[in-house]
Amino acid sequence: MSGNTMGLLFTVTSFGESHGPAIGCVVDGCPPGLAISAEDIQQELDRRKPGTSRHVTQRREPDAVEILSGVYEGKTTGTPITLLIRNTDQRSKDYGNIADTFRPGHADYTYWHKYGVRDPRGGGRSSARETAVRVAAGAIAKKWLHERYGIVIRGHMTQIGHVEIPFKSWDVVNSNPFFAADEAVVPELEAYMDSIRKSLDSVGARLRVVAENVPVGWGEPVFDRLDADIAYAMMNINAVKGVEIGAGFASVSQRGSEHGDELTPQGFASNHAGGILGGISTGQDIEVSMAIKPTSSIAQPRRSIDRQGNPIVMETHGRHDPCVGIRATPIAEAMLALVLIDHALRHRAQCGDVVVDTPKIPGRID
Amino acid sequence: MSGNTMGLLFTVTSFGESHGPAIGCVVDGCPPGLAISAEDIQQELDRRKPGTSRHVTQRREPDAVEILSGVYEGKTTGTPITLLIRNTDQRSKDYGNIADTFRPGHADYTYWHKYGVRDPRGGGRSSARETAVRVAAGAIAKKWLHERYGIVIRGHMTQIGHVEIPFKSWDVVNSNPFFAADEAVVPELEAYMDSIRKSLDSVGARLRVVAENVPVGWGEPVFDRLDADIAYAMMNINAVKGVEIGAGFASVSQRGSEHGDELTPQGFASNHAGGILGGISTGQDIEVSMAIKPTSSIAQPRRSIDRQGNPIVMETHGRHDPCVGIRATPIAEAMLALVLIDHALRHRAQCGDVVVDTPKIPGRID
Amino acid sequence: MSGNTMGLLFTVTSFGESHGPAIGCVVDGCPPGLAISAEDIQQELDRRKPGTSRHVTQRREPDAVEILSGVYEGKTTGTPITLLIRNTDQRSKDYGNIADTFRPGHADYTYWHKYGVRDPRGGGRSSARETAVRVAAGAIAKKWLHERYGIVIRGHMTQIGHVEIPFKSWDVVNSNPFFAADEAVVPELEAYMDSIRKSLDSVGARLRVVAENVPVGWGEPVFDRLDADIAYAMMNINAVKGVEIGAGFASVSQRGSEHGDELTPQGFASNHAGGILGGISTGQDIEVSMAIKPTSSIAQPRRSIDRQGNPIVMETHGRHDPCVGIRATPIAEAMLALVLIDHALRHRAQCGDVVVDTPKIPGRID
Amino acid sequence: MSGNTMGLLFTVTSFGESHGPAIGCVVDGCPPGLAISAEDIQQELDRRKPGTSRHVTQRREPDAVEILSGVYEGKTTGTPITLLIRNTDQRSKDYGNIADTFRPGHADYTYWHKYGVRDPRGGGRSSARETAVRVAAGAIAKKWLHERYGIVIRGHMTQIGHVEIPFKSWDVVNSNPFFAADEAVVPELEAYMDSIRKSLDSVGARLRVVAENVPVGWGEPVFDRLDADIAYAMMNINAVKGVEIGAGFASVSQRGSEHGDELTPQGFASNHAGGILGGISTGQDIEVSMAIKPTSSIAQPRRSIDRQGNPIVMETHGRHDPCVGIRATPIAEAMLALVLIDHALRHRAQCGDVVVDTPKIPGRID
Repeated sequence: MSGNTMGLLFTVTSFGESHGPAIGCVVDGCPPGLAISAEDIQQELDRRKPGTSRHVTQRREPDAVEILSGVYEGKTTGTPITLLIRNTDQRSKDYGNIADTFRPGHADYTYWHKYGVRDPRGGGRSSARETAVRVAAGAIAKKWLHERYGIVIRGHMTQIGHVEIPFKSWDVVNSNPFFAADEAVVPELEAYMDSIRKSLDSVGARLRVVAENVPVGWGEPVFDRLDADIAYAMMNINAVKGVEIGAGFASVSQRGSEHGDELTPQGFASNHAGGILGGISTGQDIEVSMAIKPTSSIAQPRRSIDRQGNPIVMETHGRHDPCVGIRATPIAEAMLALVLIDHALRHRAQCGDVVVDTPKIPGRID
Repeated sequence: MSGNTMGLLFTVTSFGESHGPAIGCVVDGCPPGLAISAEDIQQELDRRKPGTSRHVTQRREPDAVEILSGVYEGKTTGTPITLLIRNTDQRSKDYGNIADTFRPGHADYTYWHKYGVRDPRGGGRSSARETAVRVAAGAIAKKWLHERYGIVIRGHMTQIGHVEIPFKSWDVVNSNPFFAADEAVVPELEAYMDSIRKSLDSVGARLRVVAENVPVGWGEPVFDRLDADIAYAMMNINAVKGVEIGAGFASVSQRGSEHGDELTPQGFASNHAGGILGGISTGQDIEVSMAIKPTSSIAQPRRSIDRQGNPIVMETHGRHDPCVGIRATPIAEAMLALVLIDHALRHRAQCGDVVVDTPKIPGRID
Repeated sequence: MSGNTMGLLFTVTSFGESHGPAIGCVVDGCPPGLAISAEDIQQELDRRKPGTSRHVTQRREPDAVEILSGVYEGKTTGTPITLLIRNTDQRSKDYGNIADTFRPGHADYTYWHKYGVRDPRGGGRSSARETAVRVAAGAIAKKWLHERYGIVIRGHMTQIGHVEIPFKSWDVVNSNPFFAADEAVVPELEAYMDSIRKSLDSVGARLRVVAENVPVGWGEPVFDRLDADIAYAMMNINAVKGVEIGAGFASVSQRGSEHGDELTPQGFASNHAGGILGGISTGQDIEVSMAIKPTSSIAQPRRSIDRQGNPIVMETHGRHDPCVGIRATPIAEAMLALVLIDHALRHRAQCGDVVVDTPKIPGRID
Repeated sequence: MSGNTMGLLFTVTSFGESHGPAIGCVVDGCPPGLAISAEDIQQELDRRKPGTSRHVTQRREPDAVEILSGVYEGKTTGTPITLLIRNTDQRSKDYGNIADTFRPGHADYTYWHKYGVRDPRGGGRSSARETAVRVAAGAIAKKWLHERYGIVIRGHMTQIGHVEIPFKSWDVVNSNPFFAADEAVVPELEAYMDSIRKSLDSVGARLRVVAENVPVGWGEPVFDRLDADIAYAMMNINAVKGVEIGAGFASVSQRGSEHGDELTPQGFASNHAGGILGGISTGQDIEVSMAIKPTSSIAQPRRSIDRQGNPIVMETHGRHDPCVGIRATPIAEAMLALVLIDHALRHRAQCGDVVVDTPKIPGRID
């Protein structure tokens, strides 16, 4: 009930505060027999890790993951897999002041009212640090989906502030600090981000995630639609304010004759649907796009109040990402993987034994 | 698992096919003692009903709801409330041909591959007719939220095709066929819709839903965030392709100094957050916007295939909405109500007895 | 949350009051393609039906089931199956008095305190009439389990009051009014039941349910153990006060050398485990036994109180079963079927693709 | 789905293998503001700890619990509470042989068939060691229930093998190694257990758990009945083979005039119901009894098979409890606490604001 578990059949139960002893998660429902190692998971964690460039937070966490259970002799056993990341870089300081005030754009105010108590150290549970465990859990999901179905899940930034980033190639995405799919735009982005930092401000971003080779037939038809579960997953990422599937908001001004993807013996002729029709995957690429708000913690003075309701002025100094959206790419990939594996298992449960007289339609046109 | 139940504590289990004997739902978890009648529910259903103007489908369903259980002497008893709507206007015809083909933009193709079998009569379970039961269930949720917390949930269209519709006043929304909050734009919309119909085409739409008077503190902090559950709910509406909370996609190009809502002793100074911070309600208005794709069923010839994979050309004649988005307004309101009541009950379960030393901040500035 | 839905993957949502317009259920998660008809379901319902002998309630309900959704051309489509049973024999009378008092041994008192309101007509939702919908839902589960795995689920009475009923043969169970597996004891039971009725009293009963041909490997290892889910299911039947698996309470005084079932190349040498080890099926028969309390509604005067707390004396006249346990047999079979199909689907979800190097052990010795 | 999470609103997600790095659990949904410390939890753990007398396993685990999250400045924050117990006394040895065989009465055989792989070290996940985390989680539930409602949950052994143990007083239960409520029987039990150990055998047991001061109105009426959830919880404890509520199996031969508890202005006149009517608490003591099978690991030679199906003879030496039932008492208390807190929260969610015109009946007679 309390919003720390995601999934129905493949579940991730997240725990831990930013500056407590540890963060981690319990991954349950993973099929047995999957080869998985701490290294497999670490690889994904390192893509999200802070301190990798001057454009992200300089907090230095090794984010070293330990597997506490569920893996024996290198393979999953079908029992819960526990992943633990000890917190190591909590700068000790007096949080007394922070505990008594509410940072604008932060969850301080809402946590306080919800629970009547909150752990203010480093944002506590609302810190983006918590998302590391989703990336770790997602690494397991990604591996299984790839081994069993050949599914590939990848993301890239499409816009930072007002700088749009064209898609050129997946090959360069992981070799620049912006998850940009076009290297030509990197110098502009670097200059832009430097200027944002200098102005003690932050910016929003937009990113896109794609899943290839998803079989036709995953997702439920009324609630728990595949697109609904994806929207849910993405909106569960800190700072996400909008989600689109396929044509998204562009479909508002489209005509039906333009939007509806025609079918041909060679496959669909377009993919405005984003790979999902009636809540169920079509076999085409799953296409997701999302908007991420600018970082709330900025060093400019901002009006706020304290717990007694008195007006104050806050400047949030510290090691904050000037654009939280950048490091969201591996998180969004992980979340998509978690949704897909859950629906893979659901499909297997209900429809696993149906023999379909499959029409000879390739799922997608290349 | 199979995607016909929504909610954790206040659940709606939807059932029925468009042209089967009936559609309906079981609403479980409703607090006892709420006064509710078939008339209360019918009122909401009538707002979504087909045949109310020339701009929506001419199918004539009375959509008369019957309460089968859970209400005694006009009050809910705490036991499951069953709402039944008999189908009456299924034109009998030969569906043999439709059963053998896949309409572009429809769920025919994905249902077939998922289940290996499908009920093709009038779209079966994928028909928008199913959404009537959500409106019915939402009427109960709306009433309880209003009686207990004074919550008001309202929606209106903000764009149809390329015609933007400004917000002038809630008062006129229910007195024009477009749920437009500005009567001045109605003639333009009528002419526009007539032209769309004449061109045998359809258009997309955008709409906005607002919940006022939601208390601070509802929603969960990691998964099941209030915004994530709203995104999930809206994306579960047929044809929705994008969802925004507060500033939404506009936040991509915003600065942190602009986006982050400052707090003052008189309340928040703005509402870019859309009433939700860290997944939890702030006490400000919940602001949701969504994109709806153009109706897939159009009378223009479209390329498709049959079950054997042979190319065919389809023209979908019949009584279809030229803009499915129009009738989505009451559905979106209902879905928002269903999310809110679920979180109201969750909050009461976990935090019901916490005495908060509430700061003297009004939830919102009027 | 509110206890009207059972199951995780194969769910049954029950609704309806004894003397309201109808009772029924929504069955969700059923694999598509199963041939099912109203007759298949009716057959099971008729086994539980009142009025079949003088030893059960004389209330005459046809209990005619209508399939409202989820079945097309005689086969399940994978969408929710709704089963409706209209109530027809509610004798109209003044319930005013009953509404103001609490019958001993009944749920009147607890419903009143839980909800602050209750539907007193014929026991409302707490009436055993509600169990008819479980039998209906169980009929679908039974059929699928049998067609796909050859599973056979059968029950019989093992004791009524102090009359023990030996097991002779399954063949006679359905041809006597007591679900006795030994015809020789039927005359004694008839005389016994007649004497109970004459003394205006009621008696308890014990029954046994067995599932044959359940594959090895179903059930979860920590929570949701197969035996735990069975105990849950059986204790959810009105009036059940105890549940045993395999040796049950006899295992208290057993030695380990006696209880632990040895394995041989030909199979297990005994079945004290009742077909379940560590929460997971062994491939042997699932063996369940349960205790059912005597009917609470008896015509003898009993002390009670009214809503104001004043002492009263109640005699409950009417058409009540002198031993509610008798008609519990088909209900217990249905509940076992519902547990098994849920675990069948769970197993398929998580472990469906594991290739086990199966040792050559037959699951059971015949 | 995979059976490692229990509860709907107050959830416990258990993880860890007996001889892996650690066992532990995530407790979610705990109301904020509860004072809880590692010491509070340790106290309960020590009651279940191995090595406390010669009658239980001599394995020496400190079972020291660490709180990893969810508690700040000594109080729960409403976020997930993670409890970790590192494993320290895993004797390193070659498990190769054990991995290739199936111990009679153990889950080896079923795990192998379910998952196709298993962690054989010390029983892996099926080890009774896992139950330590339930006791830890239960300590939190117990404390909240006591602080908020004054609920007291206690258990004691009622039979070991064929030695029945009368109830004399709660005061002595924790001061003898058998959780016996009568000190006079302790010498007989000691002699009996010594003889069992000498004969290289084991015995079953029966225990009783009672919850006092549970408010009237908890539990659901159809599924998720309070008694059904208790039966589920108890049957989820390793080795439990039977569960009774109130009169239990004795009700089989009771008359209705004897079993049905009469109500008087001073309260119920008896408690055959065990504190639950129609699935809902009556306000009387919740009375639960359960049967526990004899330990499967015994040093006598037993027939079994290896993975290839060849016959073998096994003697299980090691540090095993000759009666696993003894240490089950704190586990059963914990499980009852976990069921009750979940229903406390459910009740608050659905019925929290109903004002009942309560009749003046004390819940119980003293």
